[in-house]
Amino acid sequence: MILVGELINASRKAVAAAIEVEDAYTIKKMAIDQAAAGAAYIDVNAGIFVEREPACLAWMVPRIQSVVDIPCCIDSPSPEAIEAALTVHKGRAMINSISLERRRFDALLPLVAGSDLQVVALCMSDDGMPDTADQRLAIADRLVNRLVQHGVAPTDIFVDPLVQPLSTDSSYGIECLVAIRRIMVEFEPVHTICGLSNISYGLPRRRLLNRTFVSMAAASGLDSAIVDPLDKGVMDAISAAAALSGRDDHCLEYIQRHRHPS
Amino acid sequence: MILVGELINASRKAVAAAIEVEDAYTIKKMAIDQAAAGAAYIDVNAGIFVEREPACLAWMVPRIQSVVDIPCCIDSPSPEAIEAALTVHKGRAMINSISLERRRFDALLPLVAGSDLQVVALCMSDDGMPDTADQRLAIADRLVNRLVQHGVAPTDIFVDPLVQPLSTDSSYGIECLVAIRRIMVEFEPVHTICGLSNISYGLPRRRLLNRTFVSMAAASGLDSAIVDPLDKGVMDAISAAAALSGRDDHCLEYIQRHRHPS
Repeated sequence: MILVGELINASRKAVAAAIEVEDAYTIKKMAIDQAAAGAAYIDVNAGIFVEREPACLAWMVPRIQSVVDIPCCIDSPSPEAIEAALTVHKGRAMINSISLERRRFDALLPLVAGSDLQVVALCMSDDGMPDTADQRLAIADRLVNRLVQHGVAPTDIFVDPLVQPLSTDSSYGIECLVAIRRIMVEFEPVHTICGLSNISYGLPRRRLLNRTFVSMAAASGLDSAIVDPLDKGVMDAISAAAALSGRDDHCLEYIQRHRHPS
Repeated sequence: MILVGELINASRKAVAAAIEVEDAYTIKKMAIDQAAAGAAYIDVNAGIFVEREPACLAWMVPRIQSVVDIPCCIDSPSPEAIEAALTVHKGRAMINSISLERRRFDALLPLVAGSDLQVVALCMSDDGMPDTADQRLAIADRLVNRLVQHGVAPTDIFVDPLVQPLSTDSSYGIECLVAIRRIMVEFEPVHTICGLSNISYGLPRRRLLNRTFVSMAAASGLDSAIVDPLDKGVMDAISAAAALSGRDDHCLEYIQRHRHPS
């Protein structure tokens, strides 16, 4: 599974504080730790700084890329912020995210059209957040088609079905899983990606729900995820799910990881 | 998920020893513990006693049912053993299992034909154990059809796709998961059931693989499982998977179980 490490997000107090005082050490350490744990992208989010978001991202990205040899996932709905980050980014970044909301789509399209960027395509429209698998598929259909028409390669599109909290409606887990399965079949060869932790909001034992959900999502075809790579339970589940999905030849990676249980 | 507690199996030393000396206390305690942990059926297996198997089962079943108010899952390929157990069994037992192997099928059919027993239908034929989902579906197709033709209600059939160890072939996980999904769709309203622990044979961290597999199997539609109900990790995963599958209204059972994490 392609993993995006979610920890460098300014909605977390430690990250906001580090950005505030330009504490590069803290940011770099989070990047190193996540890459070492298996992240293929480092998510960078400075959304809470609003006006200063472009400057913050432009400060964070080079610091992260000075210590890890992987791209960033630039996590913002703002074209100015994304552009500021891209200007200093090395390699192919992932943009998180474009959606079908008219203003957001129109603002971000020029950045991704004909580029070689990877793009998270979030199943959200001006009609609000989708409840059902059908609603997600309808949004994904229009979003993927428009992106492809504007020169984005299907293999660069990561459809995010939009995970909503199970505590709000007990159908939200299964509707999301069904959407993942259908997107992977109907829009092949796009990827699917999820921010997992939303699923467990408001419920006890969130990590149990998160790791069970990622296992079920893997069984439904999910091939990328935005996760905390330092959450051993989630990472263990991901390694087991890869082996059980036949994506780990001879279970070599699984055996390598678990040969000497701690 | 409908759970069959697997612990009263004479291939386990403690169980064999208890049967040998007619230690009813040990057998009863295992039944009570499994029922309290959520088992809907108590598996009883005395296969290692060969000639004495019918007598052993006929001794075990009444002892188990004297302390728990649930049926047994009579785990034997032998019609004599099953008949001996059924003679003393109260309520509707589950038979584990009939298969497409000619001798086994012909021997067990008279017991289940037109009865109200629940029947595990194991995807095994005289051609050996199936490797692929297609092979499992072909066996399931013939087996389900023949059982239905002989008066077994589809809702009383629990198709076991036959879980093979992932260590033998890294496609065995995904082929089994695909088989579960297809059986649940193509042969609705039959059930599917798995003995989980085979999947992890020969690999490290077996419980991690078992609980990840049951989560993925639940996402693929599995609605029953033969498990160790005292394995907290597996039971936690099953409760989370039920909530995430939309089978736990308002997540009430999940919240009840996990409200006060230990």
